[in-house]
Amino acid sequence: MSGYPMKPLTRPTKPPVLLNIKLGSQPRPRPPTIIPMSPFTKINSTFDVALSAQLDVAINNKTKPLGSLGLLETLAKQLGLIQQTTQPAIRQPAVIVFAADHGITAENISAFPQSVTWQMVENFLAQGAAINVFARQTGCALQIVDAGVNHDFGPRDGLIDRKVALGTHNFARQAAMSAVECAQAMQHGYALVAALDGNLVGFGEMGIGNTTAGAALMHKMSGIPVVDCVGAGTGLAPDGIQHKRQVIEQAVAFHAGVLEPLDVLATFGGFEIAMMVGAMLGAAERRMTVLVDGFIVTSALLVAAQLQPALLDYCVFAHCSNESGHQRMLAHLGAKPLLQLDLRLGEGTGAALALPLLQAAANFLCQMATFESAQVSEKTE
Amino acid sequence: MSGYPMKPLTRPTKPPVLLNIKLGSQPRPRPPTIIPMSPFTKINSTFDVALSAQLDVAINNKTKPLGSLGLLETLAKQLGLIQQTTQPAIRQPAVIVFAADHGITAENISAFPQSVTWQMVENFLAQGAAINVFARQTGCALQIVDAGVNHDFGPRDGLIDRKVALGTHNFARQAAMSAVECAQAMQHGYALVAALDGNLVGFGEMGIGNTTAGAALMHKMSGIPVVDCVGAGTGLAPDGIQHKRQVIEQAVAFHAGVLEPLDVLATFGGFEIAMMVGAMLGAAERRMTVLVDGFIVTSALLVAAQLQPALLDYCVFAHCSNESGHQRMLAHLGAKPLLQLDLRLGEGTGAALALPLLQAAANFLCQMATFESAQVSEKTE
Repeated sequence: MSGYPMKPLTRPTKPPVLLNIKLGSQPRPRPPTIIPMSPFTKINSTFDVALSAQLDVAINNKTKPLGSLGLLETLAKQLGLIQQTTQPAIRQPAVIVFAADHGITAENISAFPQSVTWQMVENFLAQGAAINVFARQTGCALQIVDAGVNHDFGPRDGLIDRKVALGTHNFARQAAMSAVECAQAMQHGYALVAALDGNLVGFGEMGIGNTTAGAALMHKMSGIPVVDCVGAGTGLAPDGIQHKRQVIEQAVAFHAGVLEPLDVLATFGGFEIAMMVGAMLGAAERRMTVLVDGFIVTSALLVAAQLQPALLDYCVFAHCSNESGHQRMLAHLGAKPLLQLDLRLGEGTGAALALPLLQAAANFLCQMATFESAQVSEKTE
Repeated sequence: MSGYPMKPLTRPTKPPVLLNIKLGSQPRPRPPTIIPMSPFTKINSTFDVALSAQLDVAINNKTKPLGSLGLLETLAKQLGLIQQTTQPAIRQPAVIVFAADHGITAENISAFPQSVTWQMVENFLAQGAAINVFARQTGCALQIVDAGVNHDFGPRDGLIDRKVALGTHNFARQAAMSAVECAQAMQHGYALVAALDGNLVGFGEMGIGNTTAGAALMHKMSGIPVVDCVGAGTGLAPDGIQHKRQVIEQAVAFHAGVLEPLDVLATFGGFEIAMMVGAMLGAAERRMTVLVDGFIVTSALLVAAQLQPALLDYCVFAHCSNESGHQRMLAHLGAKPLLQLDLRLGEGTGAALALPLLQAAANFLCQMATFESAQVSEKTE
């Protein structure tokens, strides 16, 4: 559980952002796997005045009324800036689904039992889940990662074992994970992305109880009241939502001194969420496009973007989830999602469904004729 | 220009809906091609209580929280009802783009000159337009139809010649087309769809000036005030939009006695619009899914659905266009579009971009595991 390939510090003039976790609560009794704190290279903004102007010209010269491809034009420009070209392309897209369990399920905050997490992992491996169907349809490679499921899968084809522990602690009573576990999870995510061949990665998750963790992270990172962060998750009735809200409010009060992003992540997060934080930072560092799925993935982004705001330049928001709070989360980030289909499934399903739109954005920019090349008359006004 | 294959009346107990155009204005001086008035078979509603219940069960037993695939679940059920199966599939999807010119351009209501219509048809044939890029990406067959462009293309590979005339008349001064021309255009659309092998067809259009025709049709068919029907089209400035509105208001006053749907179509429509009306009716009659694109295509649907309201059961609304008025048009139809990407390009681009979502809806229903088959625990509440 050590020795994950780290990107060498090729840009030594930029100060690395160190993982500097000052977790107040006690570490969990199990002996932690000691790994070194990782230096994450500073992520550069994609901002580039000259390229931006070139992309505007390229987009506006295509044979269509000005601006008539709407969000696809914004997206094409973003892809161009990320890939530093006027001819962007989506190469070997992948979705990584991180699965983990949450101690907070002991507080009865989910409509489904915790065992559904490992059962759904089995379903992923058997190609039976929604993300399998959508990734297959859209030609997207799919990786399933055990980030910390409370189940012994044994060695399994198709399952990437990065289990940090058998689920987190119950954050109603103690920190969900230790600082070391949090750093370890982030390292795993970072390393998994570094091993990808493509230039786009979407993230998905599976973890009964993780909308409770996500809502707590959302509240802590955004300051939005807990009541506006909490939703039905997999399908709570109104009294269940009310209970979930109380659990989070009490936990937030219990951990009132926890304020720094990584402390917040370790205290309220999950292993799948911490792994996504590391993976997002690693992807942007490698100038990959980060395709953000729903509520949980965006809660990971709230933490990651707090650490490195330039990460947001690399993020495309796949959809606005029907999970209450996701719309507010997106608004907080100033994000405009591609799809509004009332999805609330997780697993990266929104990311896989949005992928053809990213391909369409790159394709129109690379393949459409210009007014000049097609000899089409321009606007007369 | 006669003898298009007509579907035999296999259901003689249902009264055919006759094309019964009572156009008040004079026919245009050119000798019309006389074709028989066509009997369109009555379209049956897809409503089916037993199948509807079976589809609900099939959708709800999939390994996902209840309702968590949002609009895709509604869509999967609709596809099942259209195809009369719990295992719907999208077979050989096609987009047909109908191009035609509009006499109303003489009133200076477009930001682009009329010649752009034929130039864009050339662009379609050269694979350089947005619809070429998106249809190719999504594996959608593409047909380009000259419905009435003011240009002599000569015989051309890849161009389907169904030219009714060299553009319509200027509806500010007389009816856009004769009753015979309108019926002829509808027959062409009907026959083109009848020749398709697949079970889904999307419609697109190209025609400088056709948002003016579409807005007039929208006003006449919905009663929505002209001011709320008129938008920028390909890119009019505010004073141009104001002028366009006045042109339509004066034309509507001039043709005040025209009320019946087919009369309205012939008076204000275009050949591409009339062809789409016939094509939509033909597609639903054959229980094909009709993928509706933007403002112009929906204006055709307003006419077609007035003739046969059950047509709406077969329609999937690809997107909400950024053309002012489309949102109101969709609301008038009670339609919920799949995409909101601020597109306003036409050509069927929204339809092609939405196609993967229809495939995803069919795929999840056919390919996902059930709670039982995957041995995943169900909700505990």
